[in-house]
Amino acid sequence: MTQLYEHQIQALGSRERAALVNSISGFKAANLVGTVSADGNTNLAIMSSAVHLGSHPPLLALILRPDDACQHTLENILATRVYTLNHVNESIYAQAHQTAARYPRDVCEFEATGLRAQWEPNFAAPFVAEARIRMGMTLREHQKLTINGTQLIIGEVATLSYPQDSVNGDGSLDLASAGTVALSGLDSYYRAKRLGRMAYAKPELSPHHID
Amino acid sequence: MTQLYEHQIQALGSRERAALVNSISGFKAANLVGTVSADGNTNLAIMSSAVHLGSHPPLLALILRPDDACQHTLENILATRVYTLNHVNESIYAQAHQTAARYPRDVCEFEATGLRAQWEPNFAAPFVAEARIRMGMTLREHQKLTINGTQLIIGEVATLSYPQDSVNGDGSLDLASAGTVALSGLDSYYRAKRLGRMAYAKPELSPHHID
Repeated sequence: MTQLYEHQIQALGSRERAALVNSISGFKAANLVGTVSADGNTNLAIMSSAVHLGSHPPLLALILRPDDACQHTLENILATRVYTLNHVNESIYAQAHQTAARYPRDVCEFEATGLRAQWEPNFAAPFVAEARIRMGMTLREHQKLTINGTQLIIGEVATLSYPQDSVNGDGSLDLASAGTVALSGLDSYYRAKRLGRMAYAKPELSPHHID
Repeated sequence: MTQLYEHQIQALGSRERAALVNSISGFKAANLVGTVSADGNTNLAIMSSAVHLGSHPPLLALILRPDDACQHTLENILATRVYTLNHVNESIYAQAHQTAARYPRDVCEFEATGLRAQWEPNFAAPFVAEARIRMGMTLREHQKLTINGTQLIIGEVATLSYPQDSVNGDGSLDLASAGTVALSGLDSYYRAKRLGRMAYAKPELSPHHID
């Protein structure tokens, strides 16, 4: 085992430090965030920071970093108060990754990457047509985290679409069967293979699989 | 495709809703959070909410839900201001899942699940000996999110250990080779198989793999 103390992490070169620290939280969700500006320019950006906040009401949080390609996304979310989350799948991960490039404001990442914008009735942000699991989100809360200037965006699920054949018996979604990928670090994409599902944990029972 | 609007999600039974909404963010990190109370009782709890906040300084956030087995973890973090994050791997995922059971305060999840506590010099929270990637964290910030009562915990990496043979050329960690698992929903554990690593995205280049 290699052990690093914080001063050693801080002393790494910035690229090596970013590569290392971005990988230590574990596997990450890979979502494309779709937005539109007040004057109608669509934007699409890959993000790995979606995290579950609660299911009643259904809330997800996102962390946006000010120094990356998310700046237009943040401005659009604050202007329109809606955005979409679209699971990156095996068929589109290379195009999804390309949305991280710093395109000028008037370049549409949909056109630049070949992903197709899909609009749904009564929802004012673009979905990714190629995504199999996608959500329309309404902004509920926004704050700048003073500790490092990142932005915490909390949204409520307004609409949710998924393939019916990816629904497990308990109502959860089988993300592997939907082709959803996992991300690690800044650039590594993974297919997932299920090891097992565990029964609800209780103190008086030993851990056991349900499939 | 099945499409649900928010009122339909809200109308689901609470277990089905929790199963569904917990799976929509995508794949999640699986970490064991190790803590100790002021009077010396160790605690271990699986959490799927670790998220990268920044690498300089190296910061990770956790969302703790007040209604689950995390209550003791939260109390311990606030009392001692230190905790550990330990990647769940393929060899220990069943035991790791069992830490979610609501054990009484004086029951040690290490003993109850058979995982071994490991102490390091100058760090006052227990690590999981069986974990291959593990971090000692110092509490930097804590706030209750008023929107649903969840707790946002921001910690700084004080110490980081990993197998040297899991380091990629750019300094990132190869989580699959370290056996780190991904989690989906409340109970499904996955092995990861790398699809590819993508080059740094630039507007003037097409997306391309680097391995």
